[in-house]
Amino acid sequence: MAGEVRTLAMFTFQPIGYVRSPYKETREIPKGLGAKHEAEGVLELLPEFEPGLTDIEVFSHLIVIWVFDRAQGFELLGTPPSDDRPHGVFATRSPRRPNPIGLTVVELLRRDGPRLRVRGLDMLDGTPILDIKPYLSSVPLETLRRGWLAEAEARKGR
Amino acid sequence: MAGEVRTLAMFTFQPIGYVRSPYKETREIPKGLGAKHEAEGVLELLPEFEPGLTDIEVFSHLIVIWVFDRAQGFELLGTPPSDDRPHGVFATRSPRRPNPIGLTVVELLRRDGPRLRVRGLDMLDGTPILDIKPYLSSVPLETLRRGWLAEAEARKGR
Repeated sequence: MAGEVRTLAMFTFQPIGYVRSPYKETREIPKGLGAKHEAEGVLELLPEFEPGLTDIEVFSHLIVIWVFDRAQGFELLGTPPSDDRPHGVFATRSPRRPNPIGLTVVELLRRDGPRLRVRGLDMLDGTPILDIKPYLSSVPLETLRRGWLAEAEARKGR
Repeated sequence: MAGEVRTLAMFTFQPIGYVRSPYKETREIPKGLGAKHEAEGVLELLPEFEPGLTDIEVFSHLIVIWVFDRAQGFELLGTPPSDDRPHGVFATRSPRRPNPIGLTVVELLRRDGPRLRVRGLDMLDGTPILDIKPYLSSVPLETLRRGWLAEAEARKGR
């Protein structure tokens, strides 16, 4: 792949809908070690995408891909709220990413036309949604290593 | 949020790197029920993003967000290879999505500078990578419902 091709590659996406969340400001969202995301809200799709939700109610969990639309710029090394040491941005869930894309797994409570009532939101109200996918399989807990996060938890006695 | 704002919202992303995969054509990628993704390859970041990988080697699994750059258009209802019935696109992993964003969980084998050797690829060689995140937690298998996919598996006796 030529360097020139790489430099010019750009992909433009439009929201398929927006998040209706109880969080109006970033500081309201639980962060750091032991943060629980139990907030309920709605994934509100634009009406023209409603047929794309056919059969989605048979899944218990969904993956939501969205935009950190209020994040400013990015930093490749940063200290997350769950630790006191800096880590590479791709080893964290920081909003300040080269491509400010967020990912949240939510529990689907019910569907009402183009609106999905869900639990487990950690996005701000009005967040643009790029995609929704069914959550199909998990990495077994016994094979998962969580690196610096597990160490930070251990240091804080959690 | 005004309708006009929604209509005009657009987000543009540039690849942070590219996938080096053994798959050169879509038909080589295992699909459908029981498909195993054991392929090894490399997530090759552009050199300027290498500091963003600091500490990533302590995680066992990564979430890769990428672009179905060779998919053409989208369909809101389609029949996936794992079933003989149509489903909404947001209830499937179809490449023909309104925003052609793919998501793959891979196992991290080792890091060599800006290159991550991984197992579990299901992308074509040259696929643009938008983001990499640590895989931090799983939905417990006993709470996961997999809807039409579980039913299709049951019908086929898997």
